[in-house]
Amino acid sequence: MTHAGFDATVLTLYPDLFPGPLGIALSGKALETGLWTLKVVDIRDHAHDKHRSVDDTPTGGGAGMVMRPDVLASAIDAHHVAGRPLIYFSPRGRRMDQALVGELKAGGGATLICGRFEGVDERVLEARPVMEVSLGDFVLSGGEFAAFALLDAVVRLLPGVVGNADTLAEESFTDGLLEYPQYTRPREWEGKTPPDVLLSGDHARIRNWRKAEAERITRERRPDLWRRYKKEEGQTNESD
Amino acid sequence: MTHAGFDATVLTLYPDLFPGPLGIALSGKALETGLWTLKVVDIRDHAHDKHRSVDDTPTGGGAGMVMRPDVLASAIDAHHVAGRPLIYFSPRGRRMDQALVGELKAGGGATLICGRFEGVDERVLEARPVMEVSLGDFVLSGGEFAAFALLDAVVRLLPGVVGNADTLAEESFTDGLLEYPQYTRPREWEGKTPPDVLLSGDHARIRNWRKAEAERITRERRPDLWRRYKKEEGQTNESD
Repeated sequence: MTHAGFDATVLTLYPDLFPGPLGIALSGKALETGLWTLKVVDIRDHAHDKHRSVDDTPTGGGAGMVMRPDVLASAIDAHHVAGRPLIYFSPRGRRMDQALVGELKAGGGATLICGRFEGVDERVLEARPVMEVSLGDFVLSGGEFAAFALLDAVVRLLPGVVGNADTLAEESFTDGLLEYPQYTRPREWEGKTPPDVLLSGDHARIRNWRKAEAERITRERRPDLWRRYKKEEGQTNESD
Repeated sequence: MTHAGFDATVLTLYPDLFPGPLGIALSGKALETGLWTLKVVDIRDHAHDKHRSVDDTPTGGGAGMVMRPDVLASAIDAHHVAGRPLIYFSPRGRRMDQALVGELKAGGGATLICGRFEGVDERVLEARPVMEVSLGDFVLSGGEFAAFALLDAVVRLLPGVVGNADTLAEESFTDGLLEYPQYTRPREWEGKTPPDVLLSGDHARIRNWRKAEAERITRERRPDLWRRYKKEEGQTNESD
C-alpha cells in the first residue's frame, strides 16, 4: 500500500541515470516528500548467462543490436504491476501529449521500458500488454530521455507539487490553446514596455486581451490545434 | 577555433543538471573525446541585484513567475555565438523532428535557452533572434528535459559517435518510414519464432519484407507520415 500520487517503475540499462534531473526542483522535492515514488530496475539483472547479455544481433542481418525478448520479459514480469500502463518508448508509438500525461497521472502509476540499441524483439511487444509511446518524430539513443520528460510532465500535475493550482489552470493546452505572451519587470527594457492593457489594472480587459492573444498565437502557429479548439467551442455553444 | 562536430551552449537555472544523462554511453564518450562540446551557463550569474533575482510576477497579474528580459538577454549576449541557432523551448514553437535535428547538426552548434516558471518576458523573444522549439504538446517544468532530448538526438548523428553508419541509415524517419519489426535470439521464445523469411538467408527477400513491414506500420499508425511518403515517392518516380 502506498499513498503516493504516482508510482513509477523504470526498466533501463542505465539505472544510475535516475532520478537524475527528476531529483531536483519540484519533482525532486515531491519525490523526497513521497508525493510520487520511483523504482528503478536494471534490465541487466534479468540476464540469464554469466556475461549478463541483454542484446544480440538482428535476425535476418543488419546493423546494430536488438534487446532479447526473454531478458526484457523477465524484468517486466518481476516488476510490472498488472493493470497499469506498460509503456515502451518508440517512434512507432502514440504521440505523447498533455491528454496522455493526464491519463497516466489519473491511473496512479506506470512502468516505463527504456530501450537502447536498434530496439527490442517484436515478440515481447506482442506477448506483453505494451503501449508504445513516442516523444516525437526523432530518434534518441535511449528511452531514458523520453522517460524523464514523461515523468516530469506527470509529476508536476500531482496535487501539492506545483504550489499554486492556478498555474496549472492557466498554462498551455489546458483550454486547448497555446499560452498568451507574458511580461514582467522592468517596466521599460531596451525602450520597450508591455502592452498598455496589462498596466491598466482592469482585470476584465486583461482577461479578454490574454484570451485573444492565446487565440491569435494558436491560429497562426498551430492550425491543427486551432481547428480542434473551434470545433469544441462550437459544441459547447450548441449545448448552452 | 574548435574541431568538434557540434558546440552546444546551454543557458539554465540548473547548471548542475548538465551533462547529466548526456555524460554517459555514446554521448558521454563523444563528449570526452571532443566530438562535441558543452558549455553550461548559469542564468543566475547574469542577475543584477544582490538577491540574484531572475524572475518576477507577471505584468497584469496571474499565477507563477516570469523570467526577466534583462537578465536573460545579458546571458544571451555574453554567450551566444551570432549566426548560430538560438533556441528557446516552448510549447508555442516549431515541433522538434528529425529534420530539425539534421539542420542543427549541419549548423555545427546552437545555444539552448531552458525556461522555468511561467515562461520568459516576451520582449526578449522579440529583441533577440530566438527560434522557439517545442518538444511536443505537453508541459514540462523546465526546458532542460527538451535540451537533453535535442542534444542526444543531434550528437548521435555526428560522425564517429554511433559505431556503425548503417545503424543511422536504417532507422526510423531516414527514408520517411517508421521502423520494421526486429527480432533476435533465442530462435524460439514462448512458442514464438521470428517470421520464416528472416531465417531464409535470402537477402533480397529479407529487404523486401522489411520494406513492406515498414510501409504497413507507417500506413496503419501514422497516416500523416504515410501521405507524405507516398507523395515523395510519386515525385521520385515522375523524375525517373
